[in-house]
Amino acid sequence: MNCSDAIENREVDELFINLDPIQAGGRLTADAMKAVLSYGDGYSVCDNCGKPFRLDTIQKPPLAQFHADLASFLGMDAARLVPGARRGFLAVTHSLVSKNEPVLLTEYSHYTEFLAVEQVLGKPFEVMADSRHIITPDAVAERIEEVIRQEKRPPSLLFVEQVDYQYGNIHPVREIAAVAHQYDVPVLCNGAYSVGIMPVSGKDLGVDFLIGSGHKSMAAPAPSGVLATSSEWTEKIFRTTSITGDQTKRSFGLKEVEMLGCTLMGATAVGMMASFPHVRERVNRFGTQVAYANKVVDALLSIEGTEVASEYPRRHTLTRMNTNNSFDRVAKKHKKSGYFLISALREQGITGIIPGSTRIWKMNTYGVSDRQASYLARSFQEIARNNGLSVG
Amino acid sequence: MNCSDAIENREVDELFINLDPIQAGGRLTADAMKAVLSYGDGYSVCDNCGKPFRLDTIQKPPLAQFHADLASFLGMDAARLVPGARRGFLAVTHSLVSKNEPVLLTEYSHYTEFLAVEQVLGKPFEVMADSRHIITPDAVAERIEEVIRQEKRPPSLLFVEQVDYQYGNIHPVREIAAVAHQYDVPVLCNGAYSVGIMPVSGKDLGVDFLIGSGHKSMAAPAPSGVLATSSEWTEKIFRTTSITGDQTKRSFGLKEVEMLGCTLMGATAVGMMASFPHVRERVNRFGTQVAYANKVVDALLSIEGTEVASEYPRRHTLTRMNTNNSFDRVAKKHKKSGYFLISALREQGITGIIPGSTRIWKMNTYGVSDRQASYLARSFQEIARNNGLSVG
Repeated sequence: MNCSDAIENREVDELFINLDPIQAGGRLTADAMKAVLSYGDGYSVCDNCGKPFRLDTIQKPPLAQFHADLASFLGMDAARLVPGARRGFLAVTHSLVSKNEPVLLTEYSHYTEFLAVEQVLGKPFEVMADSRHIITPDAVAERIEEVIRQEKRPPSLLFVEQVDYQYGNIHPVREIAAVAHQYDVPVLCNGAYSVGIMPVSGKDLGVDFLIGSGHKSMAAPAPSGVLATSSEWTEKIFRTTSITGDQTKRSFGLKEVEMLGCTLMGATAVGMMASFPHVRERVNRFGTQVAYANKVVDALLSIEGTEVASEYPRRHTLTRMNTNNSFDRVAKKHKKSGYFLISALREQGITGIIPGSTRIWKMNTYGVSDRQASYLARSFQEIARNNGLSVG
Repeated sequence: MNCSDAIENREVDELFINLDPIQAGGRLTADAMKAVLSYGDGYSVCDNCGKPFRLDTIQKPPLAQFHADLASFLGMDAARLVPGARRGFLAVTHSLVSKNEPVLLTEYSHYTEFLAVEQVLGKPFEVMADSRHIITPDAVAERIEEVIRQEKRPPSLLFVEQVDYQYGNIHPVREIAAVAHQYDVPVLCNGAYSVGIMPVSGKDLGVDFLIGSGHKSMAAPAPSGVLATSSEWTEKIFRTTSITGDQTKRSFGLKEVEMLGCTLMGATAVGMMASFPHVRERVNRFGTQVAYANKVVDALLSIEGTEVASEYPRRHTLTRMNTNNSFDRVAKKHKKSGYFLISALREQGITGIIPGSTRIWKMNTYGVSDRQASYLARSFQEIARNNGLSVG
């Protein structure tokens, strides 16, 4: 079956164990698939929309309840759906950061955070990680001091990733937020790899903003995400419109300016909502998923010359491997060069590693079963052995 | 079947002829439904993403070709997918309008246009329609002159709807754009009810920006839309990032600032693309759809006291009716009061009119068949007769 003449059907997750770093947490649940069919039309969620005509107040389908559940799930006071985490970043920078104001990011900040700063013409400053690839509270404090010295004012905002996209390391957000707050710097926690994957409480972390990605980690269609705030910021971020038509004298009720009115409709909103009961439950099984990740990483580490670049033992399923002294040695002599690895993996029904990579590469085992984890472990070792690497 | 425990399946379009004004053009095609299942996962479109790592350059699925086809379909020089028309409005206001600068809108401007102006702190001025509910070039010229007198500068931007959401009237965008350009005012044409419904050429209209809504009129999942520009503006609106990390010295390649990188992924992007061949074809059958709309409106007009508030004969399928002197007279005496109409319609398998409305109400017959149009015509007349109104 093809989707249409020009669009081939996609069967990656049907035919393979998929280790793609960004795809693992976003695979739709069966309920989400039913939802995208039943609520595929965007305005399908508007059948029963009444005053104040806002997505987060619709009772049927139960979007109002979903918004309340999301806020509670995140340990925050208010939550709104957004078209991707990046649009959540922008809502915050646009509300908090004026032209030329300093904003603190980190060595591991995602490019969308930088673009959200660039849109408002903020001035980016990065906090560098330590040798373990961890952003430390001390480094944050130091950089804030530097910004104050240089800019004569503290940063208007600090972005920090709870789990970074490079190493999948877990950073001490609670301690970082405490330090930032000593300088009155509001803290935005990017939960793109944590919200929907592991238990996350914004209150426990003490952050002002907690943002999750629907299509990265909440088994939701794209573009989707959630922007949650503490009560202190709710009014500012979700401020309602005050513009009026100069002739008609029209005003626009309780529409929220940064949200541009309603944000997600149909497949994205209902898909996210349909997956939510599963997501809420699965975060409690994160420990098992981490154990599976470690099983695979341990098998890789048993291959001579192989190192894990991420913190170890793994505390997250997204992992950065260093196989410069193992698979890349093979690649140098193999007739398929660097492509030998993805090719051998695909023969075993495994995909998701960047084709050609044999030096530094990432994988995400999130969502595998115990049996699949064992299979992955054996497969990597077998590929190593078949290519003359010793496995100990 | 339910989508999940808490979410009832939606069957509005399966069980009824649906006249909902905003839903008619957004119903997914069968190909779009296949696409949202096959490409339900957001990052599914990223399987084969390579340099420069941008949605509009992906070859498989054929998103690069789709972007080029979209620009050509719209008669514009460049097109990008956006998470809803409103995010397209914002990309333009954010690029063109600074704080306190005047922006021209119209009496029929959608609230999302106002919010896009409010986000950048622009100053809104409205052009009022004439007695036929048409925005005229003369009125636009007059208002520009007024703005220049009052603000000592012309508006930074003019928003104009090709088809307005209130009356479904077609406004003389080409003539309006010509007038605005005499004052060097760039023109954004809101094609939310035209792009994907009727043939639209931005070049013919002479507009600088043409924006369409995927979920309103292109049979695509929400949030989706298209922002197209003439070559003069491409560089400004789709400017690429220039921000860098101060420590890592990272920069972010060819990511576009206003797009925040990639915009639509998975179900929304591929759903829109899967519907596109159908959409490109259906705009050529718009004349037939307008004929069906007129058939239904004529039947309504045959009911004593009934008036059409929109221009007549209809040139679009979205129509505003005035039944103050017909259905509302019935409502005043009916035991179901204003709900008698929707109730009677639903008994006939028709829905989409706002429940309780019997004075001024809107319907959109877009997508009906000839037989359904005749059925609608007969049904309205029958309901009128059954309630003591004469039909002539």
